[in-house]
Amino acid sequence: MKILISNDDGIDSRGISELAKYLKEIGEVTIIAPRTEQSAVGHAITMSIPLRVNEYYKNGEFFGYAVEGTPADCVKIGITNILKENPDIVVSGINHGANTAINIVYSGTVSAAREAAIMDIPALAISLNSHNPTHFEVAGKVAQELVKMVCKYKLPRGTLLNVNVPDIPENEIAGILPTVQGKTKWDDVYEERIDPYGRKYYWLTGKPLELDSEIDKDHFAVKNNYVAITPVHFDLTDYSAFKEMQNWGVNKIKDVLK
Amino acid sequence: MKILISNDDGIDSRGISELAKYLKEIGEVTIIAPRTEQSAVGHAITMSIPLRVNEYYKNGEFFGYAVEGTPADCVKIGITNILKENPDIVVSGINHGANTAINIVYSGTVSAAREAAIMDIPALAISLNSHNPTHFEVAGKVAQELVKMVCKYKLPRGTLLNVNVPDIPENEIAGILPTVQGKTKWDDVYEERIDPYGRKYYWLTGKPLELDSEIDKDHFAVKNNYVAITPVHFDLTDYSAFKEMQNWGVNKIKDVLK
Repeated sequence: MKILISNDDGIDSRGISELAKYLKEIGEVTIIAPRTEQSAVGHAITMSIPLRVNEYYKNGEFFGYAVEGTPADCVKIGITNILKENPDIVVSGINHGANTAINIVYSGTVSAAREAAIMDIPALAISLNSHNPTHFEVAGKVAQELVKMVCKYKLPRGTLLNVNVPDIPENEIAGILPTVQGKTKWDDVYEERIDPYGRKYYWLTGKPLELDSEIDKDHFAVKNNYVAITPVHFDLTDYSAFKEMQNWGVNKIKDVLK
Repeated sequence: MKILISNDDGIDSRGISELAKYLKEIGEVTIIAPRTEQSAVGHAITMSIPLRVNEYYKNGEFFGYAVEGTPADCVKIGITNILKENPDIVVSGINHGANTAINIVYSGTVSAAREAAIMDIPALAISLNSHNPTHFEVAGKVAQELVKMVCKYKLPRGTLLNVNVPDIPENEIAGILPTVQGKTKWDDVYEERIDPYGRKYYWLTGKPLELDSEIDKDHFAVKNNYVAITPVHFDLTDYSAFKEMQNWGVNKIKDVLK
């Protein structure tokens, strides 16, 4: 199995190394990821400046290809120009921070997987619900099992899985659920500051406006210690794949967790 | 009526000036737009660097606010910090180039309107089907009429209208249609070049892979000289609003065109 890995935290993030470690156990991995952090870039692509791609080494060893662009750029140029054959699946992550509810719209992690889906290649985005995550083993194992399941059960063309994992020890995971995109959004606040030269500038901050209270909503499921798996298409929630996935028995993944 | 105008071609583009000219005839307009061109940025928002906003003058007169950020940033900070009251509607455009089919995913123009929809404010994105458009009068009049219709008939919460206009004289417009997002996508090609220092770089090019042949698909409708109006939500095509809009009689707009 040929697996293309990308992300939005950048090629030097811990999450992408952890993901590669787990997926190398089940397939032949190529890493093509942004040179620098690209969080919240949405589905941006680079068109007004030329794109550059460089080989990237970690500890003196070839690690992958670093693209001076966005997550969607990585997948597009990776499949079009870098890989000799199409991958069997594209996996994006492991993101540091959840991509649930409204965050799916802004997410670079999800956009890498969506670019693959646009190119008719099965895809998975996987995120840990913490900006300083520690339980990569949970996400790593979930990714392994879901890659196998996607190959076995197939996804409809243009549909990807958006997976969110609570950052807790394996034995505290309450279960693994097919979910839909929740309604929770952000109550945005721009913090106003003055720079040393007297000019005003703003930082985007805010807190979540919790609008979900059902366990089949991604955001609520993760908050309640479930791994949430949302089938997403260009129309975002794909309700038919959501129903179809009831037969996958994804909760069985819990069996391989300690 | 209070109207907030934004775009992705930047505050100094011709399209935004033309849009403002037409919408000033029916309401009180505020312009908050990116300082520089932001095409294909998707739904990116600025989080890792501070955002700056400056007053912007054209021909010595105050024109609007220039944001050093993305279209979604403009709408977010505009509604949160710049405007004293919420606008009745947000209009994004007039974009130089169509935003139909798969392009909706990459479009900064659409993301400005979508950010408004996320904030529960009615919104409209409007684009002319040419990268060097000339028939702003068609798009300007269509925008005027649709703003009035949106206020009269209301859109479901979270739904915006994505409007695409052929760049042809008014009397050649075949009609105005409610449409759905087409399936046409891009056959991407990265052109490989060598810079003067011997380093490789890539330009994204490609041609459309035409996959639509029905008049209710946005891409095909515009190609056949129709104004295409697609209701879009976070799940992109909203089929229920699409049906609902059959009663709006949007084709009546043709009556005000020459």
